[in-house]
Amino acid sequence: MKNKDKTISIIAGGAGFIGVNLGRELLKNNREIIVADNFSLGSKENIRTYIGQSFSEILSVDLSKVSSVAKLFDYCKDQYGQVDEIWHLAANSDIPAGVNDPNVDLRDTFLTTFNLLQGAKLNDVKKFHFASSSAVYGDWSGKPLSETLGPLKPISNYGAMKLASEAQICAAAESFLTEVNIFRFPNVVGIPATHGVILDFVNKLTNCPEQLEVLGNGTQRKSYLHVSELVSAMIFLSDKADRNHLVEVVNIGCDDNGILVSDIAEIVKKVMAPSASILFGNEDRGWLGDVPKFSYNIGYLKSLGWRPELSSRDAVARAAREILGDISK
Amino acid sequence: MKNKDKTISIIAGGAGFIGVNLGRELLKNNREIIVADNFSLGSKENIRTYIGQSFSEILSVDLSKVSSVAKLFDYCKDQYGQVDEIWHLAANSDIPAGVNDPNVDLRDTFLTTFNLLQGAKLNDVKKFHFASSSAVYGDWSGKPLSETLGPLKPISNYGAMKLASEAQICAAAESFLTEVNIFRFPNVVGIPATHGVILDFVNKLTNCPEQLEVLGNGTQRKSYLHVSELVSAMIFLSDKADRNHLVEVVNIGCDDNGILVSDIAEIVKKVMAPSASILFGNEDRGWLGDVPKFSYNIGYLKSLGWRPELSSRDAVARAAREILGDISK
Repeated sequence: MKNKDKTISIIAGGAGFIGVNLGRELLKNNREIIVADNFSLGSKENIRTYIGQSFSEILSVDLSKVSSVAKLFDYCKDQYGQVDEIWHLAANSDIPAGVNDPNVDLRDTFLTTFNLLQGAKLNDVKKFHFASSSAVYGDWSGKPLSETLGPLKPISNYGAMKLASEAQICAAAESFLTEVNIFRFPNVVGIPATHGVILDFVNKLTNCPEQLEVLGNGTQRKSYLHVSELVSAMIFLSDKADRNHLVEVVNIGCDDNGILVSDIAEIVKKVMAPSASILFGNEDRGWLGDVPKFSYNIGYLKSLGWRPELSSRDAVARAAREILGDISK
Repeated sequence: MKNKDKTISIIAGGAGFIGVNLGRELLKNNREIIVADNFSLGSKENIRTYIGQSFSEILSVDLSKVSSVAKLFDYCKDQYGQVDEIWHLAANSDIPAGVNDPNVDLRDTFLTTFNLLQGAKLNDVKKFHFASSSAVYGDWSGKPLSETLGPLKPISNYGAMKLASEAQICAAAESFLTEVNIFRFPNVVGIPATHGVILDFVNKLTNCPEQLEVLGNGTQRKSYLHVSELVSAMIFLSDKADRNHLVEVVNIGCDDNGILVSDIAEIVKKVMAPSASILFGNEDRGWLGDVPKFSYNIGYLKSLGWRPELSSRDAVARAAREILGDISK
């Protein structure tokens, strides 16, 4: 038993892009953190670089397996007595992989949720914070997405399993949880990203500095949030004393209607290879399951007292610089 | 290969309460039907009584198992060449069982959906009709439920796994289905029901004709639809040539704000045991996961051209007579 005055937090998927950024900030906010990850997309290198050495535990766990989750909670109980909260960020974040085989999202995005909830119930964990996604909305043809929209028709297995997770969490809240935050993430940029449009462009220009090939015709317009702001909003909401609902469902995003993919291409090109040509595709979307136009209504988030400082363009430009800096190390 | 001029329809969960009523009507509407059921709640007796002998196949299949679903489709391909549509009604309909153990709903309500979709994809089935539920909405404190409400926070594992199924079906629609109907069922009454408030009251009065004990304080107000009307609406919508959406999400229900549980108690008492006393509980809901006040906005259904003829009260009274007649046989 250590540090009983601190909140004991499990971060599921804590070795991934958003997980390590979250972990770093949680350490500054009175948490003792236990990172649980299957290390399929996350890495211990990420943790060392972004969280440093002051975290409590790194556990290698396949959260899609009931027995592994049981062991995780047994270990935590033994070491810490009581887990206070779970931050569930574990998921298959490779959307095309899930399009090819829905079992990937079923296992890594939904069953991880299901098993963590079972573990929470058996171990009296009362607070649950979930990384949901704008992908739950499906394609609304550019209409700004607010939490009150319905019916939701996700167009990717990834989005489907995020929505399925939300649903299962709500049922668990009715049964035994006392504080639940469902954060609907936007497109998030920063480091150490494993995928995404900026990294894609940087990699392409590294391989071929003469030409940048863009998936889709460049007219996709999406809003982007920098990971530092995302994490700031999540912790703000989780620490908020006055709450409107047992289950808070909140869009987290920037406060504009986004930036064109063609502009992102220009930003990356300008920094990396000013003389490169840009080659666009013909489709209005980059891949099956891609939503071509996407912006968030963050009115509810603002009403709760948090607002972002960066625009989509600022966030993209900052992330592009960070990714380049990271690669050139 | 038989009857190529007829639509070949799999009815998953086709031996249950709604399944047999649907099967009977589909036979009158140019379908050849294949009933697939695990016979945990449904029965062959149901099929004999309600569908009769003119159906094509009854197959005993555990649709939560990938290999069983594969065998089902192999068999259908062999016998019929091509399946044209799937009516997916298989689910754990015992809500309290799912409250006790979420694995029940995961397996029988969600994995059945997941596996049927995989089977549909591999076997080029393009039409999918799904029995969803008002339970996806959660508790809106009596506000009439319309399909455009959000965010949805189901309060039972049953509702959660119905919403999860909807989500997975939407993703499948984007990928390979061409016609999808998601029917959000209300409380449905009629025979051969296996559970529900009327059957509960009838059973209680059969056991003890002096006193009827009601779960909850009787003030729960819910709208009810007779199964014959439900099935009529489902077939109407599935056969409709002009469609607004690839995925139609439609509340099916009656057109009033419901009937009090205390009134249902009176109706059943009047028929069975006029001198019985009625004993109410103290809670405003019957059980964990019960939604105490529930009525549907069926504006969208009406705009599509279908409207019910019976009120909630008429539906309940008719079902009470049918259940009594069924028992006294």
